[in-house]
Amino acid sequence: MDSVLRQSKAMCPFLKSASPATLRAMSTAARPKASLPASPCGGTMSKLQLYAHRCPVMGKAMAVQSSKYGAAAGIRAFSAHSKTGKARLHTSRNQEARAVESPLLEGRKAAPPPPPGVTAAARKDAPPATAVPSPFSASGKFSYEDFYESQLEKKRQDKSYRYFNNINRLAKEFPVAHMANNEDKVTVWCANDYLGMGGNQHVLNTMHEALEKYGAGAGGTRNISGHNKHAVELEATLAKLHATESALVFSSCYVANDATLATLGSKLPDCVILSDSLNHASMIQGIRHSGTKKIVFKHNDVADLEAKLASLPLHVPKIIAFESVYSMCGSIGPIEEICDLAEKYGALTFLDEVHAVGMYGPTGAGVAEHLDWEAHANGKPRGTIMDRIDIFTGTLAKAYGCVGGYIAGSAKFVDMIRSLAPGFIFTSTLPPATMAGAKASIEYQMAYDGDRRLQQLYTRAVKEELNARDIPVIPNPSHIVPILVGNAALAKEASDLLLHDYKIYVQAINYPTVPIGQERLRVTPTPGHTKELREKLVAALDEIWTRLDIKRTSQWAAEGGFIGVGEEGNVQEPLWTDKLLGIEQAAKEVKAAGVPENGITEALLAREGLNNSRVMDVSA
Amino acid sequence: MDSVLRQSKAMCPFLKSASPATLRAMSTAARPKASLPASPCGGTMSKLQLYAHRCPVMGKAMAVQSSKYGAAAGIRAFSAHSKTGKARLHTSRNQEARAVESPLLEGRKAAPPPPPGVTAAARKDAPPATAVPSPFSASGKFSYEDFYESQLEKKRQDKSYRYFNNINRLAKEFPVAHMANNEDKVTVWCANDYLGMGGNQHVLNTMHEALEKYGAGAGGTRNISGHNKHAVELEATLAKLHATESALVFSSCYVANDATLATLGSKLPDCVILSDSLNHASMIQGIRHSGTKKIVFKHNDVADLEAKLASLPLHVPKIIAFESVYSMCGSIGPIEEICDLAEKYGALTFLDEVHAVGMYGPTGAGVAEHLDWEAHANGKPRGTIMDRIDIFTGTLAKAYGCVGGYIAGSAKFVDMIRSLAPGFIFTSTLPPATMAGAKASIEYQMAYDGDRRLQQLYTRAVKEELNARDIPVIPNPSHIVPILVGNAALAKEASDLLLHDYKIYVQAINYPTVPIGQERLRVTPTPGHTKELREKLVAALDEIWTRLDIKRTSQWAAEGGFIGVGEEGNVQEPLWTDKLLGIEQAAKEVKAAGVPENGITEALLAREGLNNSRVMDVSA
Repeated sequence: MDSVLRQSKAMCPFLKSASPATLRAMSTAARPKASLPASPCGGTMSKLQLYAHRCPVMGKAMAVQSSKYGAAAGIRAFSAHSKTGKARLHTSRNQEARAVESPLLEGRKAAPPPPPGVTAAARKDAPPATAVPSPFSASGKFSYEDFYESQLEKKRQDKSYRYFNNINRLAKEFPVAHMANNEDKVTVWCANDYLGMGGNQHVLNTMHEALEKYGAGAGGTRNISGHNKHAVELEATLAKLHATESALVFSSCYVANDATLATLGSKLPDCVILSDSLNHASMIQGIRHSGTKKIVFKHNDVADLEAKLASLPLHVPKIIAFESVYSMCGSIGPIEEICDLAEKYGALTFLDEVHAVGMYGPTGAGVAEHLDWEAHANGKPRGTIMDRIDIFTGTLAKAYGCVGGYIAGSAKFVDMIRSLAPGFIFTSTLPPATMAGAKASIEYQMAYDGDRRLQQLYTRAVKEELNARDIPVIPNPSHIVPILVGNAALAKEASDLLLHDYKIYVQAINYPTVPIGQERLRVTPTPGHTKELREKLVAALDEIWTRLDIKRTSQWAAEGGFIGVGEEGNVQEPLWTDKLLGIEQAAKEVKAAGVPENGITEALLAREGLNNSRVMDVSA
Repeated sequence: MDSVLRQSKAMCPFLKSASPATLRAMSTAARPKASLPASPCGGTMSKLQLYAHRCPVMGKAMAVQSSKYGAAAGIRAFSAHSKTGKARLHTSRNQEARAVESPLLEGRKAAPPPPPGVTAAARKDAPPATAVPSPFSASGKFSYEDFYESQLEKKRQDKSYRYFNNINRLAKEFPVAHMANNEDKVTVWCANDYLGMGGNQHVLNTMHEALEKYGAGAGGTRNISGHNKHAVELEATLAKLHATESALVFSSCYVANDATLATLGSKLPDCVILSDSLNHASMIQGIRHSGTKKIVFKHNDVADLEAKLASLPLHVPKIIAFESVYSMCGSIGPIEEICDLAEKYGALTFLDEVHAVGMYGPTGAGVAEHLDWEAHANGKPRGTIMDRIDIFTGTLAKAYGCVGGYIAGSAKFVDMIRSLAPGFIFTSTLPPATMAGAKASIEYQMAYDGDRRLQQLYTRAVKEELNARDIPVIPNPSHIVPILVGNAALAKEASDLLLHDYKIYVQAINYPTVPIGQERLRVTPTPGHTKELREKLVAALDEIWTRLDIKRTSQWAAEGGFIGVGEEGNVQEPLWTDKLLGIEQAAKEVKAAGVPENGITEALLAREGLNNSRVMDVSA
């Protein structure tokens, strides 16, 4: 390829004007740092090659040149032909990281070493061989199995290889599950069945009925025999929940986010998607798949978002994609401020309420509803913050305890996605029983807020008790209890100890789900986590923090604090305030009785006889 | 932009050498033909602008130039900045078409007309305004609702807008369903619940039990509390079915195909994916999302595939992606020949058995298993064609009657996808009851082949009776009965008439699911479609063919035939042969008794007392 480049320098205005330093940097930019050896024949594609490939003159010249060479040149020709801007898709880093936005060529995969037939001359720059298996067999063909192994080995080496725990959650013993052995029982403290609706007998009965009458599956796609009253009714319920004109159900909210952002972003002319840096993987994928321009703004940073919006022409279509509750840290998106900006700059708001539906607001519609409690409690959604959101996405698999995802928005928007999104069109409808169960669950939570109120009280209690023991909870206003460990091996060990020594299941959250150094245990209390279970959890964590010598809050504070932990003045008012929980007066009285700050909620629960309750108000 | 282009011509070797005709063609290539008016300021991005944007010199010059202009120039700068090679993703054509492979810029969406503030000078080339709403509001912001409407209007105009039929399939009255009104019943003749397993009582009982014990949902992703014995056991069953080391379950086979091809294609260095031209949308999307090089080979054309394989260096990783049963025409992939080629050229085989699992082979593992009947019937899979396939994908939502999809293959391959595919990692596990039901269904079909044998007999009967009435069945060796209409409006009308006048539901299959001119009714017989129902269907179709004056087989033949219909000598031996069905002797006897060719199967069914049976062998 070098000869082509040299010859071209004479005629290409870019090559002529670029400095040698620039060219050198561009020639080596894409060399991989991964565990695979660099290709001895320079098989990775440099930035310069990338540009060259895009040039109508160079691209053709390179193709002609490569066809004259044998396999060795072929590798490079392939590099130049097959990967352009899309190479960054599905690299291991981007694939799983939630917040990492890499530049165009960072993290590119390595090209393969050459097959045995490549001449020595072609590989004179080759580094010495390592122990990593070559992906070429003796036949000269690519060895897929060796390649898979090398990918797995990379995961093992960077500690991101995952071992799944066999957890069989028992509906009648919620939140208890059995492991592989039926007798080996554990308390689950990290599921997203936040309200225990997966075991709600009303939901189960509805499902049994639909299952018996309408069978196990829908029998087709929505267009071909898979459209039915369960889909119609569930979508009507979802539209009612979010007070939108319309809603549409997908296999999952992963698919809903992916398909909707991909379709919108690719259809809207010259669309720009502004994406919160902590957005979920499904949104990141959807934005990538749209192929449109993406701008990442700092997590929950309205000023940064505004600066980025202001840099775009007013008439250009824009989507602000964000979440209400960010599941790994429990932070809450500034929904109202983002609506203001969207209005000012002519952007669509795309709000993922996955971790909030069922959990916030008078009817469980999520944080957007929660922010105008009175209006929604009185059935007056018009003009509220929720009313200003263009697109909601949510799940049926977390607080609602079932499976599936959805979007909600204007009739035309929903109809367009229905008509154009392959991820909706070309897949089987969810089973009738699943849709019937989800509808029953949503309606149950629309009519009754006792589960989510109790869930909030138990969450407060756990946070307070952990704080009292100097165990570092990352402060946040939501129902998530992220406990900072700050080390991958320690987090895994803590999780394993909890499971084996204390029969408590809390999955460790490591890179790439959270950044390195921010490893944590993510605890999710439910109304089923009664006082006895809470005490066991807190005591177990306290012992493990000592056994493994994990940093306590005071130690983080001594170092100036970290991601909110041990940072002075970082008090986060819960979104469910004392007033909304109806405990204003009781809390005052408990405080007046001299109960310390970190014991108020347990004292209050004891006083109200709720500390072992699984329901807030049995009469409801 | 024109001034930039003119100035650049002096210095750019490509512009200098290109002929004026070429440049003219490239300048207008992307102008849309759709209902939206062409942008008055040339806001669509031409091929030339696309190339220019990719050139490091031109790209920069254009960016600088555009920043000097106001909003009008901004539109064009945006065009140049935001879309490159990925623009073809999710265009309406590609999104839904199964077989259409468009060149880079075909079907590109139109850029928006300029906002009201744009100067008159900038729009002197504008065509007269049409009635289509402008996507800009008076405020100068983009009007999303008008844009959605324009997209929907396009679908209505090209007759691809879809109206869903409300079909509630009744498990106890299979294959009958009720419409929106419970009393309004129809016979479903187009579902993919090919064997009626969605209503199988054994499956339903298994699901009731799991639902009651383990609840409505899994409660998390596979990594966080959503891994359980139902997943473990279902995956073990699937691995056993396909005689692979391992298997992995996804939300759907759409997700399985998309996630697996995207991950493999992006991870394997310089991978080339060879894709059958009729591959399903999920595979097409997966290949796009991989960002790697794709080569489309002609449908089932082994010579074309070999030519394409031979053009690639031996050591380059390659994936041949294809299906066993192509659902819209019923054709069957040349699996053995493709295995031979894969071996010769060092390629992976990726076989989608979605429409075949449960339907072919001694244990229902699909067509690959069917091809070595004896070996598999005797539990000896090693060395068979099935054994030579690297990757299977399949669904739990069609013949198995439930929902979900999967991959099966080597342990390392499956572990790599498990570890790297976002579409697997970041989504909730299927509910325990769903997985338990799917496992029960697979095991039922592994142990009992009566359903699929009867399904084949009923399919033969329907095909013969239609042939006897000169109704054009597209010939194929599978269980699909595609009836050629050849016109979108007629196909829709025939479907509507069937539903309203005959209480028979067969969805019309129009563009973009099939090419224009190949519109069809796709009929899928099941073991529940007894003689009475078959007679009603055939009589209804015969009447409708006359009422609507739809072309008969003999008319197609008079024109020389079309896609197999009326083509002399196009006899397709069923994959389920007389021998495999165990009817060799009986068929001979029926023929000897003088029964005409197109009446043999009904005569045979009558003789065996099976014509109204819903099960092949009740003792089984």
